[in-house]
Formats: sequence, structure tokens, C-alpha cells
Amino acid sequence: MGNRIIGLLTDFGLQDYFVASLKGVILSINPEAEIIDITHDLPDYSLQAAAFVLLASYRFFPHQTIFLTVVDPGVGSERHLLLARSDRYYFIGPDNGLLSPVIEAEKAEVLEITGENYYLTLRRTSFEGRDKMAPVAAWLSLGIDLSELARPAKSFERLSWPEPQITDREIRGSIIYQDKFGNLITNLSQQLVASFLNSNQGSSLALLAGRKRISEMAATYSQAPRNKAFFMINSLGLLEIAVFASSAASLLGLEPGDNVILKLE
Amino acid sequence: MGNRIIGLLTDFGLQDYFVASLKGVILSINPEAEIIDITHDLPDYSLQAAAFVLLASYRFFPHQTIFLTVVDPGVGSERHLLLARSDRYYFIGPDNGLLSPVIEAEKAEVLEITGENYYLTLRRTSFEGRDKMAPVAAWLSLGIDLSELARPAKSFERLSWPEPQITDREIRGSIIYQDKFGNLITNLSQQLVASFLNSNQGSSLALLAGRKRISEMAATYSQAPRNKAFFMINSLGLLEIAVFASSAASLLGLEPGDNVILKLE
Amino acid sequence: MGNRIIGLLTDFGLQDYFVASLKGVILSINPEAEIIDITHDLPDYSLQAAAFVLLASYRFFPHQTIFLTVVDPGVGSERHLLLARSDRYYFIGPDNGLLSPVIEAEKAEVLEITGENYYLTLRRTSFEGRDKMAPVAAWLSLGIDLSELARPAKSFERLSWPEPQITDREIRGSIIYQDKFGNLITNLSQQLVASFLNSNQGSSLALLAGRKRISEMAATYSQAPRNKAFFMINSLGLLEIAVFASSAASLLGLEPGDNVILKLE
Repeated sequence: MGNRIIGLLTDFGLQDYFVASLKGVILSINPEAEIIDITHDLPDYSLQAAAFVLLASYRFFPHQTIFLTVVDPGVGSERHLLLARSDRYYFIGPDNGLLSPVIEAEKAEVLEITGENYYLTLRRTSFEGRDKMAPVAAWLSLGIDLSELARPAKSFERLSWPEPQITDREIRGSIIYQDKFGNLITNLSQQLVASFLNSNQGSSLALLAGRKRISEMAATYSQAPRNKAFFMINSLGLLEIAVFASSAASLLGLEPGDNVILKLE
Repeated sequence: MGNRIIGLLTDFGLQDYFVASLKGVILSINPEAEIIDITHDLPDYSLQAAAFVLLASYRFFPHQTIFLTVVDPGVGSERHLLLARSDRYYFIGPDNGLLSPVIEAEKAEVLEITGENYYLTLRRTSFEGRDKMAPVAAWLSLGIDLSELARPAKSFERLSWPEPQITDREIRGSIIYQDKFGNLITNLSQQLVASFLNSNQGSSLALLAGRKRISEMAATYSQAPRNKAFFMINSLGLLEIAVFASSAASLLGLEPGDNVILKLE
Repeated sequence: MGNRIIGLLTDFGLQDYFVASLKGVILSINPEAEIIDITHDLPDYSLQAAAFVLLASYRFFPHQTIFLTVVDPGVGSERHLLLARSDRYYFIGPDNGLLSPVIEAEKAEVLEITGENYYLTLRRTSFEGRDKMAPVAAWLSLGIDLSELARPAKSFERLSWPEPQITDREIRGSIIYQDKFGNLITNLSQQLVASFLNSNQGSSLALLAGRKRISEMAATYSQAPRNKAFFMINSLGLLEIAVFASSAASLLGLEPGDNVILKLE
């Protein structure tokens, strides 16, 4: 028995023939596959945004879900294709770093795809999502033996992922994602902020972001002051900069890559 | 036996982790659920657009469909979550007015969600769509007894919804929705226009919208004059301002909220 | 037994009630239908883009898939609705040229829809996708006899589709599609380019596009020079102008409709 659900995450957009082609290939091989779009509207070629959205959503899916992830500026080159497997999930994608954060989070075993027999073509192709990765995902969903499709990888690419720097008086981090509402998500985790506060009881916190100083912390969007940036621990357990019913990114002129400093006052 | 189809309507956009998280939660609880996207591209926080799209589409779905609607600037506050039930459909969403037009249209019974046992978390959350409403929708789709999930609501929020004003010589209404093509949909219904015309036989009609006077009425888009605004009764039975193969909103500089007057000439 | 998969291709966008209405109608008639979105984000009213995306993706779908295609500025007029059938697929859409390229590619039989008994309404409608074509697609997916729904068409509209002009020293073609990444796809096929090269062995090629001369040819995106336009045979077997990890359309200021000349040097 196979794993019926295949989640797709790409930067293909929805307006072209790309996503439909993936779906057609999958359904031609496994008509019972249930294909779920994670997202296709990632910024072009952004491995970090892709890795973030995958990390933020994969664990809500049923166990045995297969995630097919295609953000792939190196398509057609000699880079390998990966199939990572944890106790709970499968992840397929190019070996360009996209999968490394989820591999680490899931302590997944990393395989290198060798299933040429299952590809749509043996020729060089500029659409490996359609011609190689989608067929592998579909055959995997049919329950084919993994050894038919992949072998242990000797190594794989790691995505450069910004890590917070912690001192006695401050934590330096950065904005790693901006969502549709203009909320700015940082790499400062709830645990990190909590332990920083615990070591400095009685102090209050401020967040420096760009040239702004944000001193309001709120439990959720609706608890926040109006027309004013605040920070909160969001539903992913990460520190997020937001404005009630408005865009923090526009108000503050900040974007992913910008630095933040959480300070004692 | 449950109700397999769950329709999703949110302002989350498709580019982030939000919609995928809802789908993952639902499928983890009910792998047989069939999830249909109504839309996720509503204007941020627009309860009126959300209510309109729901009203315009829900009745085409199979009976017993469950609609999960999340446009929710008040997330995390003390406002309740609603579960409305008519003879034909179920509607789940925050108690902020989004559901009130469809509750009225369906003469639905209004319940207040109490199914804490089914939530993903009992803690305060800034993503109640994922942590509370999606699980309730999924359990409902499995056929769980409604008394497990909700109890009669004492009251609920009404959306302010503009009503036409009628006099002998004119009807005053407003634009309530702009679609992708730039068509402008008003709150003047076919019945209202027909009865107005019946009471004034032999007269012709003009529509004043912003500073424009529109005198052409057409039965459908392709019957209309070229490069010129006209009005018609659209497929929802509402008076709509349109331009053949072009955008009435751009041509006329009008948008939702603007007033219109239907006059005898 | 019917054909479970129905692929939707429209210019409706995803933000309104249009696509949801199609899906609701289909599922109300055939709850077992599996609806796949080909795309809904075509440029408004663009028959050529619609025909191109359909051509580029349909053959990857399982046999017996039903494609429901609605780009229809002439909605509500006297134009017919078509149902084309090949050995492998069904195609439903307005008789305005959208389907003619796929009819030719599939050598499909062309029928004219007559299934008034299956329409949602017998009245004139400005939403024939919802009221006529979606019900016909759904009933077809249930396996209803085709003679109930359609009869042979006497004629049908052909889309004007640019054909390359070939001389001894050059091929003149045009850009027929621009994808999300800004890649520019031409109507010059791999076979045409190969036979041109075969007849002129030892020569090299250059592509004139707008005021630019492009002399780099690459096998795939990642093989190409950086920051410089190149051309390649893409995954559809068509000559495409691209820039590595960037937009050829922006860099070159070109768009669909513009001419290209492939020349010997």
C-alpha cells in the first residue's frame, strides 16, 4: 500500500503549464494520488522562502505524506536529486539546500535518486520536476520499494540559514520571511526569548529593527495597539513583527535579510 | 457517515504556509475529506468581500458541504467562533459578521463552538484557523455529533451590509464588489429593478455612478456596445456595471463602496 | 463508468466566485469527480495564451481526462459550445478558437453541444461556464452517452496562430508565450531548427529578437552564461529565449507577438 498524499511546493506560479504538468504526470502514474498544493507562489528561485514554508507547514500533514519540492535554478546541471526519508515523511527535491532545514528538523535519512527507469525521459531536460521528480514521487506513492528509486547519498548541500547570536545583554537575529499580510518573521525562537528573559528577570525588552525601536509586545494580533508596530511570538513559535490589520513591512520599510536586535532595557 | 466536502474561504493568499496548514490539519483528522478552495485571494481583512464571494458560490455546492471561512483580524481575542447550520449546509468562522449574510440567506441555526477537546491546542493562539476551526471542520466532516462541538449561540455579530433606498423616481444603491475583470457589482437586485420598471412602464432607465451617467443596458457582455460602460443583470441576479472585454472599474474610476443611483429618464 | 478527472482552464482568476461555482456545479452532479486546476490566471480574454497552456500540458494527463476551458469574451452570444473528442481526451469550450490548436494536434472529432436538458438554466446567461459547460463536463464524467450531449459540428472557429516562414538563410517566427519567470517561448520547433541546421552544416546560428542579437545557445538554464540572454530548446520542444535565474522579457523588453529571426552567421 502506498502513501496517497503528495504535497507540491514550487516557485512555478499558477499561471503557466508547469504545475498542471506535474499533476498530470503524477495522476497518469497513480490515479489515486491526492495532490495538495503547499504553495507555488514563492519568490522566483528563493530557496530560503521555500525551505521556510515547508518547515512551517509539513508537520501538520498526515504521516507518510510525500513532499515534492521544486525550486531549482540549477535544473539540467549535474547536481543530484534527493529523496529524504524520516519516520514520518518523504521529501523529494533538487540537491541545492532547499531540503536541508527539514532534513535537520526531521533527522531524515538522505538518499540520492537513481530511478532512471522511472523517469519520463533519459535525455537531458530543462524540466526535471515534470520529467524526473514527479514520476519518482508518483511511483513512491504507489508503494514501490525505495531501493528501486534511490541509494544513500554521500553528501548533500546545506542551505545557509542565519543563526541568532546571543550575548548577556542582547540577541542578534534577522528577518527570515515576510508573509502576505506584511508580517515579518525572525529567526528568534520562543525558547530563546524565554530563556533570555528568565536570565534577566525584571527587565523589559525592546526590539531594534532597521532604525526603529519596537517596545510593545503582544500575545496576538488583536491584543496589540493600533497603527503601531509590535512584536509577538507567532503560531510557529518565532518572534514576529506585526501591525494590527496592516503591513509591518510597509510601515517599517523592512524585509527578509534585515537584522534585528532584541535588547534588555 | 460524514460530509466529505470542505470548502475553504480565507484572505490568507496562496504564497505562505497558512492554507497548506489548514489542509494538513484537516487531512490528518479526516484523510477522506475533499478540500475545495473557494478563494484565498480576498482583500486583506475584508469581511464584506468574503461574505459576498461566499453568498455568490455556496449554493452551487453539494448539500452537506462544510464551509470553513477565515477572515479574522480579531484572531486571538475573546470573540467566539461560530458554527451555523441550515438544512443544506454548514458554515464555520469567527463571530465577526462574515457569516451573517449567509446565515440570513439560509435561515441557518447559529451555534457557538465549544469543542475545546478537538482543538490542536488549549493555549491562546494567533492562528485559530489552523488550531481551532480546521479541526472542528474536519471532525464535523467525520460525522461527529454536533453537540460535541457547539451549543446554541445567544447572539452573533451582524455585518453592516448596505441596503438600497427606494423612492418613486429612483433607487439608491452602492457597489459592493469588484471582480477580476473590473466588473462592478451593485446591491440592486433583479427583482428590485424589475418591480421599479413595472411601476414605471414606458420609461427608460439610466444609472448614475460617480460622475458618470450610464444609459446602455445589455443582456450579457457580448451584446454590449464596445468601449463603453453599460449595465446588466449578472449571473447572480444583481445589477452590474461592465465594459465589453475591458475593466469598468478602470474606465470609470469606481470601486466598492461608491454609490449608484438608478433613475427614470 | 465515467472519467473521473476534469481539468479546468480559465481566465477567471482565483479571487472571485467564478472558479468555486464551476467546482460546486461539477461536484453536485458528480461527487466523485476529481477536479484539477490547469490554470485560472491567464491574461484576461487571451485565447492564444489559453490555447498554448492547454497544448503544453494536456498530454501529461491520464487518458479520458475531460478538459473544461473557459476564456469567453463572447459569452451569451449566439456562438456555439464545442465538445471535441480524440482517442484519448475530451475538450469542452466555447467555439471561439481556443480549442482549435488542440483539436488539430489531437486530430479530434468536433461536436457541437446540444445538451440543453443538462444545463442549469434554459435562459440566456452571462455565466455559461457555470450554467452550461460545467454541467456538460460533469455529466460526461459520469459516462452519459455522448449523443445526449452533442452532435457533429458543421464547422468551428480557428484561432489565428502564427506560423514560421522559412527561407534558405533564415527562419522568421514570433514569440507566442511569456512564462512567470520571463522566459519567452517562440513558435520555432526543435525539428524546424534541427532541419535548418542540417541543411547548413558547419554554420552557426544567431537569433535576432527586437533590436537584440542573441548568439549563445545552451542546453538548459544552468548551462547558460550569467546575466546574458541565450536561447535553448525548452521542455516543450520549442525555441525559448531565457536568462539564467532572471527575466528575459524584462532584460530584452520583448513580449508575446514580437518577431524573431533565426539566422545563419
